[in-house]
Amino acid sequence: MAEQREIPYKIYLDEKDMPKAWYNVRADMKNKPAPLLNPHTFAPMTAEELEKVFCTELVKQELDDTNPYIAIPQEIQSFYKMYRPSPLVRAYCLEEKLQTPAKIYYKFEGNNTSGSHKLNSAIAQAYYAKQQGLKGVTTETGAGQWGTALAMACSYFGLECQVYMVKVSYQQKPFRREVMRTYGASVTPSPSETTAMGRKILQEFPGTTGSLGCAISEAVEVATGREGYRYVLGSVLNQVLLHQSVIGLETKAAMDQYGIKADIIIGCAGGGSNLGGLIAPFAGEMLRGEADYRIIAVEPASCPSLTRGQFAYDYCDTGKVCPLCKMYTLGSGFIPSGNHAGGLRYHGMNSVVSQLYHDGIIEATSVEQTKIFEAAQYFARVEGILPAPESSHAIRVAIDEAVKCRETGEEKTIVFGLTGTGYFDMVAYEKFNDKTMWDYVPTDEELAQGLAGLPKMDK
Amino acid sequence: MAEQREIPYKIYLDEKDMPKAWYNVRADMKNKPAPLLNPHTFAPMTAEELEKVFCTELVKQELDDTNPYIAIPQEIQSFYKMYRPSPLVRAYCLEEKLQTPAKIYYKFEGNNTSGSHKLNSAIAQAYYAKQQGLKGVTTETGAGQWGTALAMACSYFGLECQVYMVKVSYQQKPFRREVMRTYGASVTPSPSETTAMGRKILQEFPGTTGSLGCAISEAVEVATGREGYRYVLGSVLNQVLLHQSVIGLETKAAMDQYGIKADIIIGCAGGGSNLGGLIAPFAGEMLRGEADYRIIAVEPASCPSLTRGQFAYDYCDTGKVCPLCKMYTLGSGFIPSGNHAGGLRYHGMNSVVSQLYHDGIIEATSVEQTKIFEAAQYFARVEGILPAPESSHAIRVAIDEAVKCRETGEEKTIVFGLTGTGYFDMVAYEKFNDKTMWDYVPTDEELAQGLAGLPKMDK
Repeated sequence: MAEQREIPYKIYLDEKDMPKAWYNVRADMKNKPAPLLNPHTFAPMTAEELEKVFCTELVKQELDDTNPYIAIPQEIQSFYKMYRPSPLVRAYCLEEKLQTPAKIYYKFEGNNTSGSHKLNSAIAQAYYAKQQGLKGVTTETGAGQWGTALAMACSYFGLECQVYMVKVSYQQKPFRREVMRTYGASVTPSPSETTAMGRKILQEFPGTTGSLGCAISEAVEVATGREGYRYVLGSVLNQVLLHQSVIGLETKAAMDQYGIKADIIIGCAGGGSNLGGLIAPFAGEMLRGEADYRIIAVEPASCPSLTRGQFAYDYCDTGKVCPLCKMYTLGSGFIPSGNHAGGLRYHGMNSVVSQLYHDGIIEATSVEQTKIFEAAQYFARVEGILPAPESSHAIRVAIDEAVKCRETGEEKTIVFGLTGTGYFDMVAYEKFNDKTMWDYVPTDEELAQGLAGLPKMDK
Repeated sequence: MAEQREIPYKIYLDEKDMPKAWYNVRADMKNKPAPLLNPHTFAPMTAEELEKVFCTELVKQELDDTNPYIAIPQEIQSFYKMYRPSPLVRAYCLEEKLQTPAKIYYKFEGNNTSGSHKLNSAIAQAYYAKQQGLKGVTTETGAGQWGTALAMACSYFGLECQVYMVKVSYQQKPFRREVMRTYGASVTPSPSETTAMGRKILQEFPGTTGSLGCAISEAVEVATGREGYRYVLGSVLNQVLLHQSVIGLETKAAMDQYGIKADIIIGCAGGGSNLGGLIAPFAGEMLRGEADYRIIAVEPASCPSLTRGQFAYDYCDTGKVCPLCKMYTLGSGFIPSGNHAGGLRYHGMNSVVSQLYHDGIIEATSVEQTKIFEAAQYFARVEGILPAPESSHAIRVAIDEAVKCRETGEEKTIVFGLTGTGYFDMVAYEKFNDKTMWDYVPTDEELAQGLAGLPKMDK
């Protein structure tokens, strides 16, 4: 452990200390995440099957649960240097405002044009697509963070980028759409006339404003039907967690340099990519018996896959065309209330995060959205950063834990992931400012309905 | 000069090396900027007169042209540490893309919630208002960067913040408005029924969407009429340039650490606050005969105060209620075409910048807006940062100079100011993406009309 130095407001690693390899936590897991299954045969997906949809090297990474370190190609390291290392911030102002003896740190991933951590995986996926000699990639985007990140990455490598954007977001978030277009991406509102699936849905539901599930189906249809194209995805997959481990590796390196030891590590959890990336090296230490932490996943009370879902094989998409994944899930038919503003609306959870939760390595909690926005506004005013609603789930619990420390007098060290900024989420902030935001928590009956849709094999 | 080290993508100063004092370039100017004049008597404004509108300590700074260094209060230094030092970025990717032997650096001020350098002065002005025991401050905002910065600063010190926002922006930029509200500011569309000036204008022009000049008048009226209030301004004033010198001081300190010597320094120029702050320590070296640089101010061709205006006393506001300032001006009645999307629409220029330009310390050039957005898009794709249209003026000229180096083979070092991000300017980007943006350059006759409105005393 390094000599104890005075800790600056922001710790930036030197470029030479930035990670040169991603960390694959699966290698240290005794209970490996269960394999993906073919949605028709229920047999484990083969690399060959996956390569029809995904880039070859990414399939390799998806299936690799033995190699603990996977080298980050030089080109990706160079791109990382444009916007990384991200700062590990000591929240001195927040600590003072809360009058807590706790020491609070956050890893801030919002200082890039995509506004979030999504770029960490987008650039990796674009790189491998380019290496494979592809012409382009397709994807879907809801709020637009992932689409923006992918557009940036594709622009850097000169790849075509076709984004299917949920129609309601396309209309309500024109700024996000324009950022993607500025980076040269084609953005199509989904459902669209450009795919068979889109045409079918438009015929059945002429007035529909779209869904993520439908956008996925369109993006996959195009990727598999067009020469030189593959489909890429911004969360849920293990490859994405692998790339996002750069967050946790940087965090740990910065903490080690200053001799900081975490007691509690907190991340928001939707598909699991940020949480999984942040906690990877710390969970690894726990799995190897080298350290002990409290790791807390925070999810919205309106979409509580870890805290109220089932650990079971389920479809990754609502269209049931993607592989089955063993995970904590609310059922692929579950859709959180439209009232829910805070992101993290995926029905399932990455299989690594699910397994770690199942095995007691991490714990989970859920929070209602007005509580989230209270924390977001408080944090914005005290620490100066306007957080994304998603990130604010972690802020909420970090504040709650710091307040507990005030009450007990414990000087715990709390580290949380601040995944991004909320500049494109001002409609939700407006609702909060106008006090027209309210909380929705699904009833047990509603949850049972979603879970009734789980594939039969697992019952 | 420090030993030549390999230069990282981003140079961050250590916190201990951050500036502890602002640099007041006026102290090193032989030709001091001319004093502000009372708009009624044409006599130099006294501190007493100014203190009715502005905070006492800020008036002192406004009038101080002898002290080269003014200590940054500890509280402001602490706030600076939340979002500063800003990185001095080596544009390796841009250099490679341009195939230029030039070395390009940019000082990036966009990594804070206000999205620009404006926060550097907002926090200082809020601090002095708080020190004076005021209850609150008023200001106007157009696009909203300054209003956002001030809202953040006031929130930090627990000051009330009343922002008059030009009505058309209030309606078209609801996101900016919500950011300000999230920080607790009151935002009023201008013209409004809350002031005599607002009511007068609404009566005369019932359908008006407002103007910056009108918003200033309303903000000043409230500040001078309400107990415990003062008015604050985000550009043009010398106090603002003083606070913004933190940009130049950090830039110079970072360059000195790595033994980097600039040949060309480039900044965009509207009211002059960013340019003046960036170049201050470099201009100081020139004024003291210690170094020589090419310093280039870049302004929009549609609002060319330096390149096509007159160096004369003029009103600072369209309402002609504010003091007269000797500066390069297009006449206080000049309003750039509504087609102009790129910011920097002020009719005049800070008096320090004007004097330095008049004395040949800096040069100036103007660029048309489609050229600006071409550079903005190019830069976004290559360097990953989506720039504000204002900042893109500097990018345009930096690229042009780098291309010249490619042609001549010269290895010049180019430094430019990247003042902010364009996340809230996507309407302008959309016009560019849709190819519906066009250029406007005022005719000589149009300029003559504006200049005909200069106060008689100066003719």
